[in-house]
Amino acid sequence: MEHCDWCDLSEEGRRFQLYESRSWSVFLADEQDLPGRCIVVLKRHCPSLSELTEEEWDELRELIRKTEACLKAVLGAALCNWSCLMNSFYKDPAPDPHLHIHVRPRYDKPVVLNGNTYTDSEFGHHYALNRSGAIPAEDKEEVFRRLKEWLDR
Amino acid sequence: MEHCDWCDLSEEGRRFQLYESRSWSVFLADEQDLPGRCIVVLKRHCPSLSELTEEEWDELRELIRKTEACLKAVLGAALCNWSCLMNSFYKDPAPDPHLHIHVRPRYDKPVVLNGNTYTDSEFGHHYALNRSGAIPAEDKEEVFRRLKEWLDR
Repeated sequence: MEHCDWCDLSEEGRRFQLYESRSWSVFLADEQDLPGRCIVVLKRHCPSLSELTEEEWDELRELIRKTEACLKAVLGAALCNWSCLMNSFYKDPAPDPHLHIHVRPRYDKPVVLNGNTYTDSEFGHHYALNRSGAIPAEDKEEVFRRLKEWLDR
Repeated sequence: MEHCDWCDLSEEGRRFQLYESRSWSVFLADEQDLPGRCIVVLKRHCPSLSELTEEEWDELRELIRKTEACLKAVLGAALCNWSCLMNSFYKDPAPDPHLHIHVRPRYDKPVVLNGNTYTDSEFGHHYALNRSGAIPAEDKEEVFRRLKEWLDR
């Protein structure tokens, strides 16, 4: 393995870490196309779901339950979309993927952050692939603060 | 619960069942936008990943390993995209989702079925949302036959 963004995460990259268990970390995603979008990342370099250990798999169950409960309680998510894709690693001629899972909370009501209103206009449908992931820094901070407060209770 | 397509699956709906374990069934999907696309369906009516029992969760791990190994061995998939979305149930004013998971094999080389060539033109990227899922009936049968043969070994 030459270099892996997830193995060699900088201090800045850990800035939005919401939670960590023995084997996994949960980060607020850089892209906030849906407010509260998170990434669940395995701490160990492992290429696929098939290669998780029994312990890692069991912990993932707890993490899904915790993250889903948090996004429902704090932001009012109606459900969460979970996906384990790993596609972009395969642009490389010698792919060396690091397992991570995307969590997109879906909303049937608008989410308000610092007076800004976010509407999930594709609710009931597949998440849009071309939606902007940029939100004001203070709104990202606000989401982070609220989710972390709930997770740290 | 009024009516659930997955709970009340017809004989015809079970036509493309590839595999079944105690708690789960694996079907070849109606949409074959990527050849070998499957759906893993819980046999019990349950709304979300958070509400799976420990036994169902453990079985899911085995099923993921088996399905991924099968799609790699039989069709040459480079990886699989796994997603648990459930969005369309939320078009209903009183959503009553039934847990299922989409499996999309992704290909860095063309797949040939009965002389027809299928290319994953978005390989290395998110799967396309607008790709046609229709393939000739005999090609769907051929995929089904090959996958089932491997799973029944």
